[in-house]
Amino acid sequence: MRMSQLSAESGISIATIKYYLREGLLHQGEQVAATRAEYDESHLRRLRLIRALLEVGRLPITSIKKVIEAVDDENMPVHDMLGTAHYALSPAVEAGDGEEWTAAREQVDHLLAELGWQVSRNAPPREELAQTLVKIRQLGLNADLTPYARAAHQLVTEIELDTVPLDGPRDAAVEALVLGTVLYGKAFDALRRLAQESESARRLKVSPPAQEGA
Amino acid sequence: MRMSQLSAESGISIATIKYYLREGLLHQGEQVAATRAEYDESHLRRLRLIRALLEVGRLPITSIKKVIEAVDDENMPVHDMLGTAHYALSPAVEAGDGEEWTAAREQVDHLLAELGWQVSRNAPPREELAQTLVKIRQLGLNADLTPYARAAHQLVTEIELDTVPLDGPRDAAVEALVLGTVLYGKAFDALRRLAQESESARRLKVSPPAQEGA
Repeated sequence: MRMSQLSAESGISIATIKYYLREGLLHQGEQVAATRAEYDESHLRRLRLIRALLEVGRLPITSIKKVIEAVDDENMPVHDMLGTAHYALSPAVEAGDGEEWTAAREQVDHLLAELGWQVSRNAPPREELAQTLVKIRQLGLNADLTPYARAAHQLVTEIELDTVPLDGPRDAAVEALVLGTVLYGKAFDALRRLAQESESARRLKVSPPAQEGA
Repeated sequence: MRMSQLSAESGISIATIKYYLREGLLHQGEQVAATRAEYDESHLRRLRLIRALLEVGRLPITSIKKVIEAVDDENMPVHDMLGTAHYALSPAVEAGDGEEWTAAREQVDHLLAELGWQVSRNAPPREELAQTLVKIRQLGLNADLTPYARAAHQLVTEIELDTVPLDGPRDAAVEALVLGTVLYGKAFDALRRLAQESESARRLKVSPPAQEGA
């Protein structure tokens, strides 16, 4: 297809597509004449991935470049490629030190070992979890996160990873991982707060509002 | 206790305590002499609440004022007071309209009815969930959120609400709700991403790194 059709099918303006080509985020089309290049499915797929990283993942262009490099490096195993995207989505954590942090990191190690999860030593969510645990312990809240881990594991194994096509095109796998990680995360967070309101109403014996028909 | 002791016990500087007093976030102490006021447990509790709203909830001072007003209004039922704090924590959603939004809102209503959850019509997480569903449907992802809802409900009823003392001091209940909502939410999010990495490694038969002893 020509660039005008690529733009129409992807919903991305020609100016933006040209920008992605210049930045090396999108691979060049096949030059079929001096002033004409042909684009195909692989370009559409790549544009979908860029949009997912940009609009849903909200990653800066420099991070998107790194993810695209991993996708384009066919020698990089799929698991490492997914990890590159995944780690780019992780919020930055100001790692601390001192006894509290050491204890929290040990608890994270211990929890992961007990669950039998296979997670890289330098996975950023480890530090995120340690940071949250430091706060939870400082505040004297219940620091046993096993039930949360079990619930997370169940959702991930029974639903989320099924939406990631691990043996298809590399862009498609990364796109699905990013969308699933961000969107199901948001959905769960909203549902959890709705569940809190409902459970608070039940415990405090609040009667349902009269107009709540439906 | 005197203000210096209140400062020492709460870890909050005298200048900041004076600022909270001026802003009406903290109630005045008992004036025992022209230049001396006495503070008690209720002041310590209130300072803990302000810190939770500020540092963990990351609320702006205007929102904190609204929450404190709800705590101080003894005529406001506990459920509504908790709702005031809870809704203040909700991210702002740019509500949309059109067919896609109508369909997503209907799906949220339907899901909540099916689960038998008692949630106010104007609860902000409803719109958050609708917004996420619009995106999930546009992208052709699995839009059945029932498993997420059930997992959220289980964690909230079996663990989270137990940490909120519903029949104690009003500040303490709001403080526990805010801390639990934010911190367990962060913990779950990090655990979910760790579970994704682990499940990806399992499906792609990645061997555990040799140095991963422990």
